[in-house]
Amino acid sequence: MPGKSPSPTRAGRLVVLGGDVSRSARAGVVWLVGAGPGDPDLLTVKALRLLGSADVVVHDRLTPQPILDLAGPNARLIDVGKRKARHTLPQDDINALLVGLAREGLTVIRLKGGDPFVFGRGGEELQACRDAGVECHVVPGVSAGIAAGAMAGAPLTHRGLAQAVTFVTGHAATGGEPQLDWISLARPNQTVVVYMGLSTAASIAARLIGAGREPSTPALVVEQASLPDERRILTTLAGLGSAAEGLDGPAILIIGEVAALADTATVVAQAIRRRA
Amino acid sequence: MPGKSPSPTRAGRLVVLGGDVSRSARAGVVWLVGAGPGDPDLLTVKALRLLGSADVVVHDRLTPQPILDLAGPNARLIDVGKRKARHTLPQDDINALLVGLAREGLTVIRLKGGDPFVFGRGGEELQACRDAGVECHVVPGVSAGIAAGAMAGAPLTHRGLAQAVTFVTGHAATGGEPQLDWISLARPNQTVVVYMGLSTAASIAARLIGAGREPSTPALVVEQASLPDERRILTTLAGLGSAAEGLDGPAILIIGEVAALADTATVVAQAIRRRA
Repeated sequence: MPGKSPSPTRAGRLVVLGGDVSRSARAGVVWLVGAGPGDPDLLTVKALRLLGSADVVVHDRLTPQPILDLAGPNARLIDVGKRKARHTLPQDDINALLVGLAREGLTVIRLKGGDPFVFGRGGEELQACRDAGVECHVVPGVSAGIAAGAMAGAPLTHRGLAQAVTFVTGHAATGGEPQLDWISLARPNQTVVVYMGLSTAASIAARLIGAGREPSTPALVVEQASLPDERRILTTLAGLGSAAEGLDGPAILIIGEVAALADTATVVAQAIRRRA
Repeated sequence: MPGKSPSPTRAGRLVVLGGDVSRSARAGVVWLVGAGPGDPDLLTVKALRLLGSADVVVHDRLTPQPILDLAGPNARLIDVGKRKARHTLPQDDINALLVGLAREGLTVIRLKGGDPFVFGRGGEELQACRDAGVECHVVPGVSAGIAAGAMAGAPLTHRGLAQAVTFVTGHAATGGEPQLDWISLARPNQTVVVYMGLSTAASIAARLIGAGREPSTPALVVEQASLPDERRILTTLAGLGSAAEGLDGPAILIIGEVAALADTATVVAQAIRRRA
């Protein structure tokens, strides 16, 4: 009976089920998808499938090309890449972009390096979708810090060495050194994993030493974890600042006794390759 | 010229290349592989491929059957499953098993729930392989705590709410309550993610409150994250103990202001289903 109330079986109309417009077969959807550390093999099966079915892929500047190549041939790629102190698109604009694309009825894959909820600002994008009534799902990914430990053979937790692992960012939202709880981070028997900490490595090390962590505490720098150009440098808290100098790729710092368990053969090989 | 020194081209002989026996084409290898939180779709592409090529898959009791089904048809499955206070096979025996299988020339996939290096004791298995001269690689996975946040829509880090996230285990190696740094864990502006904390939830909450965390701090229990039977309960630190009662599956506790961002519609639906 045409002209009556919205029906789930009518094609070409907005389908209203229980008042939840976002569930409509014609409504768009945003997937916040963890892309993992960079190696396409470290995507989840779900992320791979979603990439293949996307209408639009919204990604950051650092997303490796081999991952973008996994998007379907008709997918539109949008680079909202931003880098420390060089924001291409402010977060509010990214939020509005995601909402706008979904409202066009598109399946939007928002690719985030690592995991969307570990220093990925995915929470802000999810909130924007919720506020706009746009359906949004989150697909976890292999976080870069976890990948860095795995690639190096340095367990983030280990009996007798680290009963806890803390993830922090070395890059303050306002730029410069982050305001962290140095006393807590300097406590023994834990691993501290620092994201985006290359440019503030010396300052972070000084803070931790100042708060009581031994200068001889092992520290590992992993640049481009899981990518062909991955480089690792095993040092100590005292040497962290100089170890970080000369590196400029995305890097993870692993601070704590477990860092000494890193595969030193590889570390040496990498260091030699680096000097060559 | 038969009878001469070992040659890489001779079949049926131990191949020695540069003195590194473990690199031999005939030597076995151990892969410590993160299986993710349970949903087979949250395996990495690499884990999926390795499962298909394994000679042997060594897994824990809680590995979901749909993941085991992804092993090749000729793969031998060995359950070394252990559960709190009911160890099927002690860690030393698991280590010896992995080394022994690799020495038979087999490709051994050691599947670990979540990530091998986040409370997976993967570091001990890697060390055993190294000590025995057995080639060993680590494939990171989606850690259960990270998956729990993603499924619930609760970002583990979030501007203004949590600038750090700490992973701890609620299960002491000796059984009972773990000895954790409660003062540090009770500090504000961070998220605390507790693995295996269901049976000690009340005690953990009491410790955190005793160390200064507000009893009204949001807390989320996620049981069986990513599996069809996933259940979530949003509560507070004060209510955490009673929320955990009656649950017995593997669970993650997410403690901190971000827990309040969890998808409450789903939480309510889950709670209703649970009561039904």
